[in-house]
Amino acid sequence: MSTTSAPVSGRLAALRTALAAQSLAGFVVPLTDEHMSEYVGEYAQRLAWLTGFGGSAGSAAVLDGRAAMFTDGRYTVQVRQQVPADQFEYQDVPATSAAQWLADHAVPGQRIGHDPWLHTRQWAAGTAALLHAKGAELVAVASNPIDAAWTDRPQPSAAALEVHDEQFAGRSHADKRADVAAWLQARGADAVVIAALDSIAWLLNVRGRDVARTPVALAFAIVHADASVDLFIAPGKISAALRDHLGSDVRCQPREAFDTALRAMAGKVVAADPQGCVAAIFAGLEAGGAHIIEARDPCVLPRAIKNPVEIAGTKAAHVRDGAALTRFLAWFDREAPRGRLDELSAAERLRQFRNETNSLEDLSFDTISAAGPNAALPHYRVSEETNLPIRMDSIYLVDSGGQYRDGTTDVTRTLAIGTPTPEMQDRFTRVLKGHIALASAVFPAGTKGVQLDALARQHLWAAGLDYNHGTGHGVGSYLSVHEGPQRIAAAWSAQPGNDEPLQPGMILSNEPGYYKTGEYGIRIENLVLVETRDVPGAERAMLGFRELTLAPIDRRLVALDLLNAQERGWWNAYHARVVAEIGPLLVDAADQAWLDQACAPL
Amino acid sequence: MSTTSAPVSGRLAALRTALAAQSLAGFVVPLTDEHMSEYVGEYAQRLAWLTGFGGSAGSAAVLDGRAAMFTDGRYTVQVRQQVPADQFEYQDVPATSAAQWLADHAVPGQRIGHDPWLHTRQWAAGTAALLHAKGAELVAVASNPIDAAWTDRPQPSAAALEVHDEQFAGRSHADKRADVAAWLQARGADAVVIAALDSIAWLLNVRGRDVARTPVALAFAIVHADASVDLFIAPGKISAALRDHLGSDVRCQPREAFDTALRAMAGKVVAADPQGCVAAIFAGLEAGGAHIIEARDPCVLPRAIKNPVEIAGTKAAHVRDGAALTRFLAWFDREAPRGRLDELSAAERLRQFRNETNSLEDLSFDTISAAGPNAALPHYRVSEETNLPIRMDSIYLVDSGGQYRDGTTDVTRTLAIGTPTPEMQDRFTRVLKGHIALASAVFPAGTKGVQLDALARQHLWAAGLDYNHGTGHGVGSYLSVHEGPQRIAAAWSAQPGNDEPLQPGMILSNEPGYYKTGEYGIRIENLVLVETRDVPGAERAMLGFRELTLAPIDRRLVALDLLNAQERGWWNAYHARVVAEIGPLLVDAADQAWLDQACAPL
Repeated sequence: MSTTSAPVSGRLAALRTALAAQSLAGFVVPLTDEHMSEYVGEYAQRLAWLTGFGGSAGSAAVLDGRAAMFTDGRYTVQVRQQVPADQFEYQDVPATSAAQWLADHAVPGQRIGHDPWLHTRQWAAGTAALLHAKGAELVAVASNPIDAAWTDRPQPSAAALEVHDEQFAGRSHADKRADVAAWLQARGADAVVIAALDSIAWLLNVRGRDVARTPVALAFAIVHADASVDLFIAPGKISAALRDHLGSDVRCQPREAFDTALRAMAGKVVAADPQGCVAAIFAGLEAGGAHIIEARDPCVLPRAIKNPVEIAGTKAAHVRDGAALTRFLAWFDREAPRGRLDELSAAERLRQFRNETNSLEDLSFDTISAAGPNAALPHYRVSEETNLPIRMDSIYLVDSGGQYRDGTTDVTRTLAIGTPTPEMQDRFTRVLKGHIALASAVFPAGTKGVQLDALARQHLWAAGLDYNHGTGHGVGSYLSVHEGPQRIAAAWSAQPGNDEPLQPGMILSNEPGYYKTGEYGIRIENLVLVETRDVPGAERAMLGFRELTLAPIDRRLVALDLLNAQERGWWNAYHARVVAEIGPLLVDAADQAWLDQACAPL
Repeated sequence: MSTTSAPVSGRLAALRTALAAQSLAGFVVPLTDEHMSEYVGEYAQRLAWLTGFGGSAGSAAVLDGRAAMFTDGRYTVQVRQQVPADQFEYQDVPATSAAQWLADHAVPGQRIGHDPWLHTRQWAAGTAALLHAKGAELVAVASNPIDAAWTDRPQPSAAALEVHDEQFAGRSHADKRADVAAWLQARGADAVVIAALDSIAWLLNVRGRDVARTPVALAFAIVHADASVDLFIAPGKISAALRDHLGSDVRCQPREAFDTALRAMAGKVVAADPQGCVAAIFAGLEAGGAHIIEARDPCVLPRAIKNPVEIAGTKAAHVRDGAALTRFLAWFDREAPRGRLDELSAAERLRQFRNETNSLEDLSFDTISAAGPNAALPHYRVSEETNLPIRMDSIYLVDSGGQYRDGTTDVTRTLAIGTPTPEMQDRFTRVLKGHIALASAVFPAGTKGVQLDALARQHLWAAGLDYNHGTGHGVGSYLSVHEGPQRIAAAWSAQPGNDEPLQPGMILSNEPGYYKTGEYGIRIENLVLVETRDVPGAERAMLGFRELTLAPIDRRLVALDLLNAQERGWWNAYHARVVAEIGPLLVDAADQAWLDQACAPL
C-alpha cells in the first residue's frame, strides 16, 4: 500500500504556480463544495486531485515551502497510505487545524488565499484573526487557483432533476413551502437562502444524480415569505414534467444567476444558515444591502423528523434491503471458507443482491468491504490497490447501504470465517453489549445524543478500550446517509449535532466498534427510529429506539458468558423479528434454512 | 406551609420608591455578591430580603405593576411555599429568564436598572440587547436601590482572615503565585484580576469566616507577573501572624481601594475571568485604559485537581466524618421508631456527632433533614415553620456535610423507619443501581461529565422516571462544597462545567435521586475521587472513581431482586471498606454492633 508521489508533486507545483499568479503565498483546500456538502461531485474533488486522499473528511494547507494534510482519528492510517509523506505533513484534527497550522507557519506580510464559496463565514473570520495576529492576511480569491492548475477538471454533472413522488415524500412541496413561509413571517423576514442540496431536494420533493451516492442536484434556492421559490439550477436539468411538478410558485433561473440575485436583495430581511451557507453567500447579501438574520436552515428539523409516509417507506426499504443482505450473508457463509473471495468480489456480490431487489437507485455510500487489517480502518474504501483476500480463521467487516425511493439504508455486519480468536469474541461481545445498551435505552424527551453515547462504550471502557468515531449519525429519506441535525457521539466530537434533542421520527445509526490496528476491525450497525415509549407508571414523556435494520448478527462471534439475561432477551427478540420480517422474502430454501439457524435463540 | 405576604409587599413598595428616586422603571435582583459567589454573606442576601426565598439559586425582576421570581426545577415547590403569589409570579428557568421576562413586559422608553457589581458582563450585554429591541434601556446603577430600601441591612462580616496551614494546603502560596505568574508570562499579560473568594483563599493559603458554611473572606486580588499580589481586604481582618504568613510579596489594601486600582492599570495587559469577574470589574479596567484578556481564572483548575496532601487530608476528614455519621445512623435507628424525632432535632443531633470529632470548623451547608413530603424538595432546608415529625413506616432523607481543616464533606443517606412500601424500595433500588453504575464507571482520559450522567439515570429512565438536578458537583478542600469547574449533569443543565474533562485528583459528588411530590424523596450521595485506573490490557489511559464517603447505605430499602451480581459485588466491597475504615473509630460497642449488621454482605 505504498503511494507514488509523482502525480501529487506535479499538481502541488502547478498549484503553487497558480498561487503565484494571484500573489498568494498559500492556500487552503477543504473537502466540500459551494453547498457545504459532505459528499461532493467530481468537479469539486479538489482535495483528492491535489493530495490523493480518498477519505470523506479532511483538508489541506499549502505554503511556499511546505504543505500539510489534516484528518481526524478515522483516517490516521489511511492518510499515510494515500497521501505522499514527502509532499504533505500529516496533522491530526482536532489537535490542530489548517487555520492554526497556517498561522503557525505564515510569515508577516504573506497573503493566504481561500475560496469564499468553500468555507463558512465563521471559519474565514477565525482564520483571518489567527493570521492577522501573525501579520499575515487571509484573502478571498475571485477564482479558485486549483481550478487553474487542474487542467482536466470534470464539468459539473448534467443529470436531470427528478420528481420525488408524494407517495414517498408524504407531503406536497406546496405544504412544505407554506411552513417555511410561516417560519419567515414569524421572524419578520422576507426570504431565506437555502444552499444545502438535501434541503432543496426535501423542500421541493425533487431528487438528482449530480453527486455519487446522494440523490441531490446542484442548485441554490431563495424561499420568499409568500411561499414562492427562486430555484437556481442548470436549465438543462428541468424537463417539462419536472416544470409541471414545480408549478408556477417555483421560478427556475440559471445557477449562475444566484450571486446576482443575492446582490439584488437591498433592504430585504434575509435569513441564512451560517452552517449551511458559505461565506460568499453572506458577502453577496451584505454587498447588496440585505439585512441578514442568522438562523438554522428551516428545512433541517422537519427533514430529520420523518412523517408517517416516510417512516412506512423506510421500514419497507429496510425489509427489502435486509433480505438482500441476508442473501449475501448466507452466500458469504457458503463461499468464504472456500478461500476464493476478496474484498472487491464480496462487495460486488452484495451490490448484485441489492440490485436484484429491482428497486435500488444507487448505493448510499461506497461499500466498506474490509478483511483483516483493512477492517481496522473505520472508513476504509476498497480499491484494486488495497484489495485483500478473505482468509480462513479471520473476521470480515462489511458496512454498506442502498438508496431506494422509499428509504436510505446503512448497515454494518462483522462476520467470522472459520474460528475467530477468543480476543475477537471478547471485543465483539463488548461492542455488542454496547450496541444493545443503546438500542434498549429508554430516555426522557429532551435527551441529547451526547448523553447516550457512553451507553454504547461502557463495556469497552471497562476493558480499557474505545473507538475513535461517533456512535450514531442521522439518516435521510432517499437522501443523505449522513443527515443532521441529530447525532450520538462523545463530547469531544468535532462534528455538530450532539446537542440536538432526539425527537420521535428521527432516524439514527447505532454503530459502536472496535479497531485493532494492523489486525482486525469490528462494528455492529443498525439504523434505529426514535419512537415514543409507553412505560407503565411513567412520570415523564419517554422515548426509545426501534430497529429499522433487520439482518442476523453473527452469533459465532458472541462470547455467551459475557451476556446477561436482558442482553440475551434483546438478541432473541431482535432475531425473531428478523425471521418474521425477512424470512418471507427469501425464495431460496437454502437461504431460508441458513436464516433459521442464524436466528435460533441464543 | 402558607406564606404571609405582608413583609414582602412592604419591601417591594420600598424598593419601588427607591427605584423611582433613580428614575428606574424596574430592577433585577440576583442571588450573588460582588464575587459571583454561590453562597453569600448576610449583607448580600438581597433576594431573600425582598422575596422571602431561601433557596440557593434564583433571581427576581421587579417592574412597576408586576414582579416575578425565577427558579429552576430544584425549587418548583419551595418557591411556592416561601414567596407570596400575590406579590410575585413564578417563572421557570431555563424556559424563561429574568432578562427575557423584562424584555417581554418592558415598555418603550423605560429604564431598567441592574447593579453592575452583581452581574457578569455577558449577562448585561445580553439583557441590554433584549431590552433595546423593545425600546427600553438597561442601566447600571451607581448604588443598589435595595440597599436604600433595606434599612436594617447587616454590615459585611468583620471576621479575621486565618492561615490555612501548608500541612493541609500541600503547597506554599509562593509556589502557587509563581505558577500564576508563569501563566501570565505565557500570555504576555501583566496581571490577572481574581474576584472569586475561593480562588483567593486557595492562592494565598488563607481562609475566612465571612460567609456561612464556606470558609472564605471578602476580598479581591490582583496578581502580577512578578508573582506579587495586591490583596484588597478590610484591614481589621489582618492579624500580625497573618501579615507574617502573607509576606512582603502580598500587599494589603482596603477593599474599597479595589475599584480605584482597576482604573489605574492604563496600558497594562490584564486578564480577567468573564465568569468570575462582574461587569463592574471589566468596566473599571476599560475606563482605566487596560488591555483586557478574557481567560479562565488560573486558580480554577489547580484548585480542582487536589494535590497529594489535600487528597490524604480529604480521606482523613471523610473517615472522621463517616464515623460521626455512622454514630448518627445507629442512634437514629434506635430513636426514630420511638416516634419522638423531628427534622430539627435529628439535624441538631447529627451536628453534635460531627462536633464531637473536635475538628469541625462549620457545617459545609445547611443540613437537609427531610421527612416524608419535605424530602421531595431536593434542596429543602428545615426551619421551625416546615419542621415535620419523623413517623413510622416512612423514609427520611439527610443530606449534610462538615468543614474540617483537612477536607470538606457532603453525604446523603435515605433511611427507612419501620416498613417502607414496595414502591419506595423499587425507587431506592433504581437510584442505587444508578449510583453504582456511575461509581463503577471506567472511562478514558478526556471524558466529560455530560457523557457519564446517563449512567446514573438509566434505571430510573427504564421505569419512566428521572430527577431534576445534576448528578455530581465538584467539592473543595476546606473550601466550597460546590466547587467548579467539573460537573456531571445532563446536557440541558443551565450550570456550566459539564464540558470539563475529568482529571485525576478532582473530587465529585455522585448523587442520583428520586422525588415524588407530596410523598417522599430519595437520594444516595457519596463523594468520589477521580483516579487513574490500571486496566490489564488497556489501550487507553483510563480513569475511575474511588469513594471518599464511608457510611452504610440503608439495606432495608434495597429490592434485592433488582440487583445483579456486579451491583451486589460493589455493595459488599463498599460496606467491607466502611467496616474496615470506620469501625476502628467507633468506641461504643452498640455502635460497633450496629455497624456490623448494617454492613453484612447482601
